Amino acid sequence: MRYRDSGVDLERSDALKAALARAVEGTWGAEVRALRGGFAGVMRWPGAAGGEAGARLVAATLDGVGSKLMLAQAAGRLDAAAGDLVRHGANDLLVHGARPLAFLDYIAQARLEREVVLAVVEGLAAACREVGAALLGGETAEMPDTYRPGVVDVAGCMIGTVAERELLDGGAVRAGDAVLGLGSDGLHTNGYTLARRVLERSGLAPEAALPGGAGESVLEALLGRHRWYGPALAPELGGSAVRALAHVTGGGIAGNLVRVLPEGAHAVIEAAAWPRPAVFRWLIGAGAIPEADARATFNLGIGMVVVCAAGEADALAARLRARGERAFRIGAVVAGARGVEWSGGPRDE
Amino acid sequence: MRYRDSGVDLERSDALKAALARAVEGTWGAEVRALRGGFAGVMRWPGAAGGEAGARLVAATLDGVGSKLMLAQAAGRLDAAAGDLVRHGANDLLVHGARPLAFLDYIAQARLEREVVLAVVEGLAAACREVGAALLGGETAEMPDTYRPGVVDVAGCMIGTVAERELLDGGAVRAGDAVLGLGSDGLHTNGYTLARRVLERSGLAPEAALPGGAGESVLEALLGRHRWYGPALAPELGGSAVRALAHVTGGGIAGNLVRVLPEGAHAVIEAAAWPRPAVFRWLIGAGAIPEADARATFNLGIGMVVVCAAGEADALAARLRARGERAFRIGAVVAGARGVEWSGGPRDE
Repeated sequence: MRYRDSGVDLERSDALKAALARAVEGTWGAEVRALRGGFAGVMRWPGAAGGEAGARLVAATLDGVGSKLMLAQAAGRLDAAAGDLVRHGANDLLVHGARPLAFLDYIAQARLEREVVLAVVEGLAAACREVGAALLGGETAEMPDTYRPGVVDVAGCMIGTVAERELLDGGAVRAGDAVLGLGSDGLHTNGYTLARRVLERSGLAPEAALPGGAGESVLEALLGRHRWYGPALAPELGGSAVRALAHVTGGGIAGNLVRVLPEGAHAVIEAAAWPRPAVFRWLIGAGAIPEADARATFNLGIGMVVVCAAGEADALAARLRARGERAFRIGAVVAGARGVEWSGGPRDE
Repeated sequence: MRYRDSGVDLERSDALKAALARAVEGTWGAEVRALRGGFAGVMRWPGAAGGEAGARLVAATLDGVGSKLMLAQAAGRLDAAAGDLVRHGANDLLVHGARPLAFLDYIAQARLEREVVLAVVEGLAAACREVGAALLGGETAEMPDTYRPGVVDVAGCMIGTVAERELLDGGAVRAGDAVLGLGSDGLHTNGYTLARRVLERSGLAPEAALPGGAGESVLEALLGRHRWYGPALAPELGGSAVRALAHVTGGGIAGNLVRVLPEGAHAVIEAAAWPRPAVFRWLIGAGAIPEADARATFNLGIGMVVVCAAGEADALAARLRARGERAFRIGAVVAGARGVEWSGGPRDE
C-alpha cells in the first residue's frame, strides 16, 4: 500500500505549497523573518528595537489534528487527541527557540455534539496547562453541509515568543555536527490516514494485542500521545550545544530535518541507530508499505531531531536522558548538497 | 422558517459555551485580560511592565468563514469569501483597539483541489495586505473521511497588538451615551446557513435580480464582502469619542452590542433609525422569518456599532462619513438592566 493510495497525495501537496508561496510572501514586510522552512512564522513585535539582540519576536503556527481524531473519537479518547494538537504546536514553536503563550482553537462538526466539544476543549485546556499556554479563544462551528455526520475536525493556532538572540533557524548548522534523535511515543499526529487504512485491511480488532508489542492493544499503540519536548529542551535554549531542532511531523525524519539545513549541509541518518518501535513494524508489515514510503510518512520512533556540535553530543544526550528522554545519536552532518540521506536498514526494538 | 430549522441551533451553542468557560479559564494566569464578552482574547506580552499604561498587549481571535463559503464556491468567488475571514478577524481585533499584525489559516477539503486552495490563499493574501497583516503561516489538510466531497472549510487566526492605554473593553460605557451604527455590505459572514435555505426554497435562480434591489442579482447581494472598518475607526482609537465598539457577527446587533455593556447599562436600538437593505427584506419575506429571528441572526444593515458620548455623536458620525462610512445614530444607552432592547419596526431602504 502506498501513501498515495490512502487518501493523501504528498507530492501533489508539495507542488501546491510552492505555488502558494508567492501569494503568501507578498504580504510580508520587513518585520517578518523568512525562516528556512520554518515550523512556525516569526516576526518582530512592534516597539521592539530593530537589530537589538534582546528584542522579542512573536512566533505562531497553526495546525489540524488530522485523522487521528477519527480513531480517537471511536475509542472515546478525543480529549487526548485534542491535547496532541496543543503539544504539536508547542513543539513547532520550540524548534525556533520560542515558548508558548496562547492557543486558540477551531472545532467544527456537521451538528455540534455537546460531549464531543466538551471532550475536545477539556483536552485542549489540560494540554495548554502542560505547555504553559493560555487557551485564549476559539470558535465552535456547526456546518451540516460541509462535514460528514458524526465526525469532528479540530485545528488550532499556537502563539509564542522568542528573544532575538535565542532564535533557532538552522543557520548555525555546520558540516561535522552530530544528529541526535529523541524518542517518540507512537505516530504522534502524522500518518493516520494510512494507519487507519492498514488497520481496516488487517482484519485485526482495535482491541487485539499489537503484534510484536509488549501487551498493549493496537488501538493503544496507535493513539500514543504526541510527546512535548519542552521540559527536556527548554533548558538548552540560548545555550551553545543545540545548533538546530526539527520536529518530526508530516514528511518524516528526512522531510523535516532538511527544513533546518543550510546550503552545503548534507545529513546522513543511520536507520539502525535506534530501535524501530513495534507499532511501525506492524504497520509496515500489515500494510506492505515500502520502506521509502514509511520513512516519508511516519516518525518511525524519532519525534524530535537535535543537531549539535559533535563534541557536545554525548554530554547533551546525557542531559536529555536525565530529563526523561530517550536520546539516540542517529547521524551526522557532512559537507554536500543540502539534503538528508538514509543509510542502512532498521533495527527492530 | 426559524433559524433552528436551518441547521444551526443558537440556543444550544450558547449553553455549550457556558459549559466550556470553566475549562478555558482554568488555563488563564494573571497575564490574561478577562474581557467582558471579548471579541478577541487579550493578554500581556512578556517583558511588558505590569501596570504601565504604555505596555503592549497581544490580542488574538480565531474564526471560520462558515457556510458563506459554499455559496461563494458555487459562484467562483472563493477568493472574496476567504478575504472576508481576514476582514472579520481584523474587525474583531479593532473593537478592542488592536491593530492586525499576522494571520494564519487552515484550509481543509476531502481532496485538496489546487484551484480551490489557490483561490482561498490568494483571497486571504489580498485581504491581509488590505488590513496590514502578514500571512504568517497556515495548514492545508486533506481529510477524505471528515469532509463532504467538493466542499472546503477555511478558518484562521488573526493576531494583533494594542497599547494598554488604548484597550477598549466596554468599561467606559455610561448611561446617556449615544449608539451609532455603521452600514454593512450585506450579510458579511453570518446567517448563511439560513440564507442558503431561503434561496433554495424561494425557487429563485441565483442570477435572478434581487427583489426590491437596485438591479444586482440575488447571488451578488448575498455575497457582499465583509466590510473592514479599520480605515474609518483607527483614527479614533486612543481618542476620547469612542467608548466601545461591537462587531456585528453571529447573534445580530443586540447579541453583539450586549457583549460590551457594563452592568447597569441598557441599550435601546431604534429599528427605524436606518434603512433596512433589500437583501434582508427579501430574505425575511421569502423565508417567512419572524422579525425576532431575523434580528438575532442577521446584521440587518449595521456591521459595526459605536458607543460614544452623546455630545460627541454628531461630530463623530460626520468624521466617519467623511471617511466613507454610512453612519446612523441608531440608539442610546440608558440606566437599567444590562441588555439590549429593540424599539419599533424597520424602515425600508
